[in-house]
Amino acid sequence: VSANANELIVLPTRAMGPDDADYAVAFAVPIATPGLSLYVSSYAAGDRNEFEFPISSRHKMLETLTVFDDVFVPIDRVFCCRRPELAGPLALTFVEYHRFTAVSYKLPLVDALVGVASEIAEMNGVARAGHIRDKLARLITYAESVRALTEAAALRGHLSDRGIAFPDPMTTNIAKYLFATQYHEAVELVQDCAGGLVVTGPGGEDWANPEIRPVLEKYFGARAAAEPRLKMMHLIADLTARDFAGYQAVLAVHAEGSVEAEKLQIIRSYDLSRASAYVRDLAGLDPRKEMR
Amino acid sequence: VSANANELIVLPTRAMGPDDADYAVAFAVPIATPGLSLYVSSYAAGDRNEFEFPISSRHKMLETLTVFDDVFVPIDRVFCCRRPELAGPLALTFVEYHRFTAVSYKLPLVDALVGVASEIAEMNGVARAGHIRDKLARLITYAESVRALTEAAALRGHLSDRGIAFPDPMTTNIAKYLFATQYHEAVELVQDCAGGLVVTGPGGEDWANPEIRPVLEKYFGARAAAEPRLKMMHLIADLTARDFAGYQAVLAVHAEGSVEAEKLQIIRSYDLSRASAYVRDLAGLDPRKEMR
Amino acid sequence: VSANANELIVLPTRAMGPDDADYAVAFAVPIATPGLSLYVSSYAAGDRNEFEFPISSRHKMLETLTVFDDVFVPIDRVFCCRRPELAGPLALTFVEYHRFTAVSYKLPLVDALVGVASEIAEMNGVARAGHIRDKLARLITYAESVRALTEAAALRGHLSDRGIAFPDPMTTNIAKYLFATQYHEAVELVQDCAGGLVVTGPGGEDWANPEIRPVLEKYFGARAAAEPRLKMMHLIADLTARDFAGYQAVLAVHAEGSVEAEKLQIIRSYDLSRASAYVRDLAGLDPRKEMR
Amino acid sequence: VSANANELIVLPTRAMGPDDADYAVAFAVPIATPGLSLYVSSYAAGDRNEFEFPISSRHKMLETLTVFDDVFVPIDRVFCCRRPELAGPLALTFVEYHRFTAVSYKLPLVDALVGVASEIAEMNGVARAGHIRDKLARLITYAESVRALTEAAALRGHLSDRGIAFPDPMTTNIAKYLFATQYHEAVELVQDCAGGLVVTGPGGEDWANPEIRPVLEKYFGARAAAEPRLKMMHLIADLTARDFAGYQAVLAVHAEGSVEAEKLQIIRSYDLSRASAYVRDLAGLDPRKEMR
Repeated sequence: VSANANELIVLPTRAMGPDDADYAVAFAVPIATPGLSLYVSSYAAGDRNEFEFPISSRHKMLETLTVFDDVFVPIDRVFCCRRPELAGPLALTFVEYHRFTAVSYKLPLVDALVGVASEIAEMNGVARAGHIRDKLARLITYAESVRALTEAAALRGHLSDRGIAFPDPMTTNIAKYLFATQYHEAVELVQDCAGGLVVTGPGGEDWANPEIRPVLEKYFGARAAAEPRLKMMHLIADLTARDFAGYQAVLAVHAEGSVEAEKLQIIRSYDLSRASAYVRDLAGLDPRKEMR
Repeated sequence: VSANANELIVLPTRAMGPDDADYAVAFAVPIATPGLSLYVSSYAAGDRNEFEFPISSRHKMLETLTVFDDVFVPIDRVFCCRRPELAGPLALTFVEYHRFTAVSYKLPLVDALVGVASEIAEMNGVARAGHIRDKLARLITYAESVRALTEAAALRGHLSDRGIAFPDPMTTNIAKYLFATQYHEAVELVQDCAGGLVVTGPGGEDWANPEIRPVLEKYFGARAAAEPRLKMMHLIADLTARDFAGYQAVLAVHAEGSVEAEKLQIIRSYDLSRASAYVRDLAGLDPRKEMR
Repeated sequence: VSANANELIVLPTRAMGPDDADYAVAFAVPIATPGLSLYVSSYAAGDRNEFEFPISSRHKMLETLTVFDDVFVPIDRVFCCRRPELAGPLALTFVEYHRFTAVSYKLPLVDALVGVASEIAEMNGVARAGHIRDKLARLITYAESVRALTEAAALRGHLSDRGIAFPDPMTTNIAKYLFATQYHEAVELVQDCAGGLVVTGPGGEDWANPEIRPVLEKYFGARAAAEPRLKMMHLIADLTARDFAGYQAVLAVHAEGSVEAEKLQIIRSYDLSRASAYVRDLAGLDPRKEMR
Repeated sequence: VSANANELIVLPTRAMGPDDADYAVAFAVPIATPGLSLYVSSYAAGDRNEFEFPISSRHKMLETLTVFDDVFVPIDRVFCCRRPELAGPLALTFVEYHRFTAVSYKLPLVDALVGVASEIAEMNGVARAGHIRDKLARLITYAESVRALTEAAALRGHLSDRGIAFPDPMTTNIAKYLFATQYHEAVELVQDCAGGLVVTGPGGEDWANPEIRPVLEKYFGARAAAEPRLKMMHLIADLTARDFAGYQAVLAVHAEGSVEAEKLQIIRSYDLSRASAYVRDLAGLDPRKEMR
């Protein structure tokens, strides 16, 4: 998203050793700095019609390859220079905040998955079917687990020595992990509730054609009229079955840290001592652990 | 558990109609009331040795078939008599509290699953293996999701008109549903970390035998000595692979309401209006829903 | 796909009763018959560049709304007219063949998912990582289970009274059910192996630009050079993260019968008698079932 | 099971290096050889009543710690002595056969899971409920996938140079992997269909008591009479919720190779060349792989 910004902040992305010293830097520069180039990725909304692309015709997400070619950075904009021992802590700090941001901004997305499944099931006339209700319950459980865990991460937050609040790392990572690992299943549940019309329905040009629209209106109505039903179908396609959808799905797995990174942080931030002492006591062992 | 109680409270267990009026009753009687018989189920700890059955040799769970044969209930112990319209609300009220109790008292159990997996992996000398860490992360996610959701159910609690606090129904049911539907997988993960020795290891009589024990000590040590390792194995067997374990597994699915009952309550207690209005707005429809 | 055909065959799609008699028809007409209109759906390859859309720039799938407005069908092209009792059998016969076709033509698709995951992991330089190998093993299991079950459905096929071979219904439906219910997870595994570059990588116009390409070649190489790696990334995007991908995902769930239809057929076509007699014998009951 | 045998065959269990030479041995000795001791594990059927333990009162599984203390092995019973280079191939050969045996002998077990779920659902009077049919379809899919894959492993078998037939390694391992990783879920589905009575029902002593049995017969009947229903419940408990059940569950994960071992063999035995060439062609790359 740097293409939309005025300033670019550069941070290390992982723990580093002495050999990585040249990369252990952090600084900020204006986007307009000479030698700095942004190569914006191909994903773009383009000239899309609103009927067919209700979200992606209005919202455009940019990704950028950012290249530094002999860029001058004034010393007062440098936060860290060739200090590999700071790289890990800096990356981690960023991650903890950023991953909490991630689960927070995903809540409307998971709400939307519940909403479209419920709406389209009703419009299709199948909202009372047992298997549809089962799928809806699972979608609600998904969305509301992520929400409750995100809230819990905030409520369990701590204040640092300098008075800066930060969310609880373990709870944040569990929220993100659940969001990420159940996203594709949630998409499947939505598509199951919606039916094949998500990808076989008529496009915006047909709908805009005054000779064709009456035919579509006649044959695509169900429990709901054709217009709201087809609009909901296209919203579902935009959310689960087109490039905007694919972008969201890959983001679920990789953005703000991959699934594997989350598992790593879950183990690191979990305090084993309680569970360990508890089971050692249950087993009749000294709760203070000694292997031999 | 009524066999351990002094008083028995009887409640309707579901919504009832006029034809069920004879069963729409609620009352309390002392266990010692004439005509009241308890047939206690067969599950019992028995004369178990502590080495092999570290939990179930000390804890005994009773289940009871309770039969009323011409029992007299004084009118002042009757809370509701032949009022089918009260059956549903009474059952539901009970359920909401009881299901919250359920997820609360399960927290030590899910902690124990994390603890034994971690301890035995270390004792087996495989704690650093990638697949073990993956399984441990999933167990932690399971246990801590249930804990965070249980806390959230309490924090989101409401006060009734009469000032009685009750936990949030949706969050309670989601906590219970997650606990119930992932319990068997958690058991599998623990068994995977532990190895086949959980069920092939030596029993308490062999261990108590002074001629055999030195052999067992020689061959069953790994990263940890044989004694703590075998004790931990038997704790895992008690928790995941014997009758106490089976009792816990069936309880996970059925006690305090079945999985299907939880799904039903999740849908009932979820307020669809937010998600519905949101997606209708995204789709370009009037957020106030009309089908045609 | 009727837009590509010369003849259109019309069949009942479900069991019917006397009230549905007017719809219990089967016949064939040329596409060019007066009164017959095809409204082709919007999914189209369009003017896509091969770099970015390696599959969907070459292959175009059409879906059609087919409308009959006072179409004359000669009596010798009518196979069944107002015979609702034939509707169910006709639909079922079609389904059994068509569902076998479905799992058969999906085999290259599931092979492709295994292939791209393996190739991109190697190109990314992570093919030896434990979690990547875990995901690859799960993808292979998915693809090869579907293949083995499809082969089994054919090998267990029967000859009808008239000598027509048909695949085994139960095995066919199990193959399709596994394919359908694990497809989205397979997509997730592929995206996990590939990384975020699947959706953030440079597009075809940048690649074609002689000033930009050297920059992309410099920075997007990993274990493999930028060109093969970016081509593989775009293949993965086409397969899992764009409209062609969404089309395949919805097809997995709904085409040739939905997941619920497959479950129904699995139960119907499974012969319970063996399992039933076996467990009744184990339980000490008369294997010939009587409830009381 | 060596306690039931006349001869003991000893084989290496994994690939070995020069340092392991002392353990790279294979031979056979009679069980009665001096210096050979078997310490049989504690799992035993004991004095169980048939009502409560319909399977485990009749079948006893033994596991043994086998200790060699200065045992003499005649040279003509030695198949391999201090040849670490043979250890891996020997272990692998054993595994391929043994894992095929495993999935073959599990078929009655998975059939039993389908059978008891179906029988008890009918006896409980809930066989037509939508969620029960869903669970039954999933159990059938589980059991019949394992069966079809086992058959496929045999049908795809090869003849070695010496004319010895062996099952296809990849298919065998996929069959075993599916059996192992879905076993606990299958147990959960059975318990869900059966209800809490699996662990709260009356035991054999109560049933044998002529004063108590009429009470049990009166109150435990449902769609089926109390006797068949309680017998089926106890069969389910024996299969899914007691020590015999736990033994089967741990065996599912670990016997004849663990889940991780199966994943390893799936990757090793899968021929990537077809999928690899296919996707390279789709991506517009030379199908003969070169990284740069």
